[in-house]
Amino acid sequence: MHALEKILAKAAKKDSVRAGEIVNCEVDMAGVNDLYLQTIRSFYEMGGEKVFAPQKTIVFLDHYAPASTIIQADNQKQFRAFCRDQGIDKLMDINQGVCHQIMADKGFSKPGQLIVITDSHTTTNGAFGAFGTGVGATELAVILRTGSLWFRVPEVIRINLEGELKPGVYAKDVILYIIGKMGADYAVYKAVEFTGSLLNQLSMSERMALCNMTTEMGAKTSYIQPDEITFSYLKDKAVDYEVFETDADYQYSAELTFDVTDLGTQIAAPHSVDNVFPLSEFEGKPVDQAFIGTCTGGRVQDLAAAAYILKGRRINPSTRLLVVPASSQVLLESIEKGYIQTLVDAGATLVTPGCAACLGTHEGMIAEGEVCITSSNRNFPGRMGHSKAEIFLASPASVAAAALNGHITDPARYLVEREDHDE
Amino acid sequence: MHALEKILAKAAKKDSVRAGEIVNCEVDMAGVNDLYLQTIRSFYEMGGEKVFAPQKTIVFLDHYAPASTIIQADNQKQFRAFCRDQGIDKLMDINQGVCHQIMADKGFSKPGQLIVITDSHTTTNGAFGAFGTGVGATELAVILRTGSLWFRVPEVIRINLEGELKPGVYAKDVILYIIGKMGADYAVYKAVEFTGSLLNQLSMSERMALCNMTTEMGAKTSYIQPDEITFSYLKDKAVDYEVFETDADYQYSAELTFDVTDLGTQIAAPHSVDNVFPLSEFEGKPVDQAFIGTCTGGRVQDLAAAAYILKGRRINPSTRLLVVPASSQVLLESIEKGYIQTLVDAGATLVTPGCAACLGTHEGMIAEGEVCITSSNRNFPGRMGHSKAEIFLASPASVAAAALNGHITDPARYLVEREDHDE
Repeated sequence: MHALEKILAKAAKKDSVRAGEIVNCEVDMAGVNDLYLQTIRSFYEMGGEKVFAPQKTIVFLDHYAPASTIIQADNQKQFRAFCRDQGIDKLMDINQGVCHQIMADKGFSKPGQLIVITDSHTTTNGAFGAFGTGVGATELAVILRTGSLWFRVPEVIRINLEGELKPGVYAKDVILYIIGKMGADYAVYKAVEFTGSLLNQLSMSERMALCNMTTEMGAKTSYIQPDEITFSYLKDKAVDYEVFETDADYQYSAELTFDVTDLGTQIAAPHSVDNVFPLSEFEGKPVDQAFIGTCTGGRVQDLAAAAYILKGRRINPSTRLLVVPASSQVLLESIEKGYIQTLVDAGATLVTPGCAACLGTHEGMIAEGEVCITSSNRNFPGRMGHSKAEIFLASPASVAAAALNGHITDPARYLVEREDHDE
Repeated sequence: MHALEKILAKAAKKDSVRAGEIVNCEVDMAGVNDLYLQTIRSFYEMGGEKVFAPQKTIVFLDHYAPASTIIQADNQKQFRAFCRDQGIDKLMDINQGVCHQIMADKGFSKPGQLIVITDSHTTTNGAFGAFGTGVGATELAVILRTGSLWFRVPEVIRINLEGELKPGVYAKDVILYIIGKMGADYAVYKAVEFTGSLLNQLSMSERMALCNMTTEMGAKTSYIQPDEITFSYLKDKAVDYEVFETDADYQYSAELTFDVTDLGTQIAAPHSVDNVFPLSEFEGKPVDQAFIGTCTGGRVQDLAAAAYILKGRRINPSTRLLVVPASSQVLLESIEKGYIQTLVDAGATLVTPGCAACLGTHEGMIAEGEVCITSSNRNFPGRMGHSKAEIFLASPASVAAAALNGHITDPARYLVEREDHDE
């Protein structure tokens, strides 16, 4: 069995499961965010009275943090009342940040867990050796009622990463390159496991970016085998977890190998995530907004890379730079390291930790005809504002370099030293 | 003549002016903010081609910083294009903060100036011995075209402040008390000058709060005679200014004296600014949201008072606390002093410097039935979200104390040491 199958087997109280099988699994942690008020409505419509496992339920007010409309404020009010009524003490209010970062910060993301959240990028949890997946409101309501949900055991694709990254090239570039090569539907309902020697060079922050974006290949979940980097990150955060290992005879549905040694900086052009090119093909394209943040690219290491490029410099006056720490812990740590000060000094607009403009709800909308380069994960038409705006996806370093020059720029020229950051 | 009359006389190129007279004045600094796109439209509708004095024009993108809707984003896009087309180099983009704070930070607020901005709280400039007043889009468009605007020379009310403030009582409490006593229409189209021994104890920050809120008495402008506190603040910020003094024989239209020695903490209850009570009358009232920020109460000294109360403590889980530095300079200085870290540690939600939720556009809306206590200046129905929410106005210290306890609380019990802060 694959480690992911072992997680599902344990959650289904079965000795073994196999790809394609439908299993009913007890969920270790179920999360709802403020986009999904329908979850609560569905829970009651299904006749729900008391949440099955309040201690395994977590509520995130992150997509509208803080509320920018009366309707958003009312949604959050209803979530707070629901937590009070149901005895849910894991209410992550508007002062916390993006769900996936909070899960990591607080040690909820850990090996062997089955984690289900109403957010497509719950695949991020694969970085911790967990089975993380996103669902809709109805499925989450079922978990709230019963503690369990059905899953089809996914086939697993193994992506083997070898080589060393050049300066200015990051996990974000690697995953963009892979998505570009394989296409947005390559891994639909499959799991993607990353292996290979490159992983030894990737911090948890970069592993999270890698796993986060498997969603953009259609993956149901993702996986990286926990190792010393994982355990070191989890020290002082989490202790009670079980590490599963894939059996030697496990048959992957596909195995790919990428050597990243010669990989240059990548960029996804409008309007799909798999529309990927060497960044150099767009070098010089003027940018109106540069956005560093989200569950993909808003961690301390991301802000460090941006601060390295912008230290003592000023962003181009034709560009605005939004910096959104992924969580309040990221904010505090980035202040302690001086990154926030450097970025604000350089002309950045600091935004409340949370999802911000990533999904076009508030705090950084773009107007018709504007161009945005962003460290986030999606560039569909209208994703961050007007449907006739253009969104380019790149690494936080590439976003910072674009902000500095007012146009798309390869960050490699700034010789960014990689600072691993995993306390 | 009054000093304010001398400012108008100079701007009108006349030897003297007197109350009630209509004069046409050249404006020293004209500001437009992003709520007032109509200003640009009116400018062109009036046949405007080139702005009369681009170097005296300043554009603030503060009310929608950063844009939370496509329409807001488009407004800001049009403002940026206008600045580019017209050679206006004083574009204060979304990375700057609230207009009145920027005017102070950058040394544009200075004695003897005639300052006109499309924002009612331009009276704040009185703290610097300037004639500052807010106008609508059409009037500002006239200034853009001609460099001048007509004014009716206002009568001046003198408010003499004597005594010493008790711990936990601030300029905000003083001005709320005065507005409560005199009523929201007491000073309509008049100027309000503050004099008296209390001023020697008030930093520029507190003087700005005092002058800012004269708007809530209907005042056209306000005034404090520049003194050593003013000059010390302006050192390294501004040099080229002229200080006018009121003639000994000037006849005020009214003279009031308040001794603040026994004044307790004040609060304005819904739904008008002059509905003022001793805060003790509402002690214990539960609060859903506490808001520290804006041109009235978002300066370094305000954040210092809040941080003093919240240091090493956590806000009540039933309350959310929004902290919005009035400008990026306030943000950076408050990080340097450790206030931001203290407040975020205590559970505050840090929001982008700007107007934020103050006027109900975004970033901190309140839902139906919710209660908000805020350091801002208005509590009209619907001002910060739902029209059936309640807004209480108080000092930043009172807001922090309410956040700590989850209900309205007199901050005096925390024995806040007053930290004058005027670098």
